[in-house]
Amino acid sequence: MRIDVLTLFPEMFEGVFGASILGKAREKGIVSLATVNFREYSTNKHNTVDDYPYGGGGGMVLKPEPVFAAVEDLMREGEPKPRVILLCPQGETFSQSKAEELSREEHLVFICGHYEGYDERIREHLVTDELSIGDYVLTGGELPAMVMIDSVVRLLPGVLGNELSAVTDSFSTGLLEYPHYTRPAKFRDWEVPEVLISGHHGNIEAWRRRQSLERTFRRRPDLLERMELTPADRRFLEELQKNEAET
Amino acid sequence: MRIDVLTLFPEMFEGVFGASILGKAREKGIVSLATVNFREYSTNKHNTVDDYPYGGGGGMVLKPEPVFAAVEDLMREGEPKPRVILLCPQGETFSQSKAEELSREEHLVFICGHYEGYDERIREHLVTDELSIGDYVLTGGELPAMVMIDSVVRLLPGVLGNELSAVTDSFSTGLLEYPHYTRPAKFRDWEVPEVLISGHHGNIEAWRRRQSLERTFRRRPDLLERMELTPADRRFLEELQKNEAET
Repeated sequence: MRIDVLTLFPEMFEGVFGASILGKAREKGIVSLATVNFREYSTNKHNTVDDYPYGGGGGMVLKPEPVFAAVEDLMREGEPKPRVILLCPQGETFSQSKAEELSREEHLVFICGHYEGYDERIREHLVTDELSIGDYVLTGGELPAMVMIDSVVRLLPGVLGNELSAVTDSFSTGLLEYPHYTRPAKFRDWEVPEVLISGHHGNIEAWRRRQSLERTFRRRPDLLERMELTPADRRFLEELQKNEAET
Repeated sequence: MRIDVLTLFPEMFEGVFGASILGKAREKGIVSLATVNFREYSTNKHNTVDDYPYGGGGGMVLKPEPVFAAVEDLMREGEPKPRVILLCPQGETFSQSKAEELSREEHLVFICGHYEGYDERIREHLVTDELSIGDYVLTGGELPAMVMIDSVVRLLPGVLGNELSAVTDSFSTGLLEYPHYTRPAKFRDWEVPEVLISGHHGNIEAWRRRQSLERTFRRRPDLLERMELTPADRRFLEELQKNEAET
């Protein structure tokens, strides 16, 4: 997979693109990651890429020319057109299923604005997807681009070892994870639950399932509505609800 | 404000902490940003910070000792206890109101795991908040920490200039932003809407309001439910709904 990021702050990406899973995926040749400073595509002598908005109002607006020129320069004849993703608060909220969808593409281009608005013609005629990572205000599209790139690249075949894939799969149960414990068995006054050191695998599985259900019930009940539950799960949840109502 | 980040990958933060708004806030002395590699607090000779889970299963678990020791080393006598934030998929989803809440603290500590689980005693006895930035799988807590730090620091007094504050305020209307246009008035075949070059401020305001309403109606109808609408807004939305139903 090829990923290009248009940004006025390419130095923000250096540490992230070189470290951990992204760095390894790059070394293995599974993904190429590059930044393009689209200021280099500015056509005026002051190298500006933004201008005042038509109709007045505060804030600056990114001009269409440098962004179109930079993206078109990344396209190669005979190659499929890239998915061109605009990071913006108005976009669709990014999700795991969007990550899976993007992981099947050959070429992704991310456009990161930085507190400026985008000229609407970029949205209408160049961009294929407008995405946001959540309902909070950020300074620019750079951090959201890094988040999406991390979540997409780790899905590419060969990037994660088997051990890590297993960890990821635990998300696919649709429940929040049960509590984890490791050594020491007693840290300060706090001991590991007895069942986990009992060696009784059936009891351990049942305890973990109930812990997952209870944590999901308390923190993210919305997730329970979407998933398939066993009769034992349902009985346990009904008990929880009853106890809740009594206290 | 003082912000410390516990991470095994401090190099990931260099580009982000130095650039843009965060870099400026640091230079102005409004915030101090530091990373702590908690591997330095490992108590065993191989410098490991994780171990196998009690009860079996895949994946590794972060041990409690180095994380407790690193956080406690950051606390100073006579200073208020920090908010200790664990980045994890099971956490509460981060939001703008959480950013505002955190921006009123004096000291934030972020704990970033990296595909390992956290020993439950870290959650129970050290951490004050468990937060997630959204429903997608990431390799570690580093990118979520950067996202939260950006959104918190930009709220601190003196960080943003007046112009930028104004841009941020447009979010507080609760609607998605209207389309922006800048020069050239005609780019390729695509022209700026006439109303924006008319100079008629009343018409421009009305056009922008309707565009904001329509975009919010189509993309994020959930936002409309939470906000106060004028009678004119309601009439416009009813028309949109009617047109929708007819086509």
